[in-house]
Amino acid sequence: MKNIVVIGGGTGTFTVLTGLKRYTRNIAAVVAMSDSGGSTGRLRDEFGVLPPGDIRACLVALADSKGLLRQLFNYRFNAGAGLKGHNFGNLFLTALEKLTGNFEKALEQAARILNIEGEVIPVTTHCTNLCAKLENGVIVKGEAQIDKPKHDGNLKIIKIWLEPKAKANPRALRAIKKADSIIIGPGDFYTSVVPSLLVEGIAAAIRKSRAKKIFICNVMTKFGETNGFEVADFEKNISKYLGGNILDYIVFNEAKIPKKLLARYAREKKYPVEFACREGRNKRVKYIGADLASHKTLIRHDPDKLARLILTIAQRQENLKYKEY
Amino acid sequence: MKNIVVIGGGTGTFTVLTGLKRYTRNIAAVVAMSDSGGSTGRLRDEFGVLPPGDIRACLVALADSKGLLRQLFNYRFNAGAGLKGHNFGNLFLTALEKLTGNFEKALEQAARILNIEGEVIPVTTHCTNLCAKLENGVIVKGEAQIDKPKHDGNLKIIKIWLEPKAKANPRALRAIKKADSIIIGPGDFYTSVVPSLLVEGIAAAIRKSRAKKIFICNVMTKFGETNGFEVADFEKNISKYLGGNILDYIVFNEAKIPKKLLARYAREKKYPVEFACREGRNKRVKYIGADLASHKTLIRHDPDKLARLILTIAQRQENLKYKEY
Repeated sequence: MKNIVVIGGGTGTFTVLTGLKRYTRNIAAVVAMSDSGGSTGRLRDEFGVLPPGDIRACLVALADSKGLLRQLFNYRFNAGAGLKGHNFGNLFLTALEKLTGNFEKALEQAARILNIEGEVIPVTTHCTNLCAKLENGVIVKGEAQIDKPKHDGNLKIIKIWLEPKAKANPRALRAIKKADSIIIGPGDFYTSVVPSLLVEGIAAAIRKSRAKKIFICNVMTKFGETNGFEVADFEKNISKYLGGNILDYIVFNEAKIPKKLLARYAREKKYPVEFACREGRNKRVKYIGADLASHKTLIRHDPDKLARLILTIAQRQENLKYKEY
Repeated sequence: MKNIVVIGGGTGTFTVLTGLKRYTRNIAAVVAMSDSGGSTGRLRDEFGVLPPGDIRACLVALADSKGLLRQLFNYRFNAGAGLKGHNFGNLFLTALEKLTGNFEKALEQAARILNIEGEVIPVTTHCTNLCAKLENGVIVKGEAQIDKPKHDGNLKIIKIWLEPKAKANPRALRAIKKADSIIIGPGDFYTSVVPSLLVEGIAAAIRKSRAKKIFICNVMTKFGETNGFEVADFEKNISKYLGGNILDYIVFNEAKIPKKLLARYAREKKYPVEFACREGRNKRVKYIGADLASHKTLIRHDPDKLARLILTIAQRQENLKYKEY
């Protein structure tokens, strides 16, 4: 079985892992460590721990799906002064990190309890924060401030970096080195996908790797991060942070989305990511369009469709309809 | 191997279980469910769950002692608005009870994760509270209010009961029925030891049982609960709540305690429990005095000495020095 490394954090990575887990155990998730919002942000502030939220979500995605403990890790306290809003899994990782002084040990225990398939690897174990420079020169500090902008979301992000600089977790580098395929995205582009590539050593390891490099485009743009992005814009920007024109595949959704749902997203200034077969596109990359969206109440990638497409590309095991452009 | 049932809750029961676990796996702890103080009290108030604290302590006592998870369950958050003071194990039981709507299921998962030897059984799974009537007629409601009295601690407790009435957990009744020995106490007399006996069906089951019934006297009296109690006072009062003169053994400490330590306890109006070989004592009961105290910084029962004495009485397996009176 071939080794698949998934790079990201957040809901998009959760979707990829949930889908892939049905077909393979050889998955390593390399997870962003710059989240600073919500329950995670409060725990970072109050306990000085590393951000548990994205790690917890990946653990849950790869956990034994029948287990009650899987649900427990995602359980969110809905009452209690100060407890409200915290995920149980975040508290688990926090308490164990405080007890042992070691985030990786905490993670190891959680992985064991949840009986996970595959590996969940923090991209770094150094404490760091995301910073962004907007096109008007303003610098925004902290993932939470970039993710839910208090600044004018029409302003483009022109640069993003980590402060202080963070070195890669050696386990992440080893996983990338061993990988047969590397999946980047989907997810909030600047707050979930790019942060892992900013960690020292990660982009270089991906460039060096002989794995197939597959980028998964988001289904929808996000106001404040990817306003007006088309598939080619994702490609251009991710290549910038990868440090080269090294992608082998870019996957995007071609399924139509119901108008009613689109109207709701439009109110948040989120629009479908279009593929314009424009000139001057990157000839090295294969553009793969397919029906990938699930759209019940939210517009998301369908975990199963996405996983099967990834495996088709990565391992040529199945025949799923898709168009190469 | 003979079956031992330990009835109580709180530190005293923790000590008994910790000691016994080294020698036998056939232990069932039947645990009081009326605690309303500290982390447990806050969780009861805010989430409407059953009190997790005493159950958690018993789980930890019976847990695989090498495990990191054992330490985790006892970990107390020392920061965080609202999180501070909560035990991780209490949050575990609370989250899982909220998730499943079932305290026993939560307990089962915790027992599995901690790899416990023996059984931890809530004496009841009905929500109830402890009430006490003082000698001046005042009624005090809530375990926390009785345990750390805001009223004049010189006043005797003349009656104690549960509100609303609570029925026994069938598992507790089965354990008592199967028991070869039943250990009651040590622990705060009215707030940790007696509450289990107030649950409907428990005292009757103990009376009916053919097990040896062993009561462990506290080393020290406690202001507000057992002021001036001698061994015989414990015997008289516990028999009242057992509903009969059914004890086979009463165990008490005979070791001398360093004066310095006694002086510190005296400041809290706590004094050694004395055995006065007075006339008119209960002829049915064997009074067993032995060196049982551990007194480093706190005066406690030594878990190992106590366990070996209990096993000597219960199973006549070992020879430990003690005096029968």
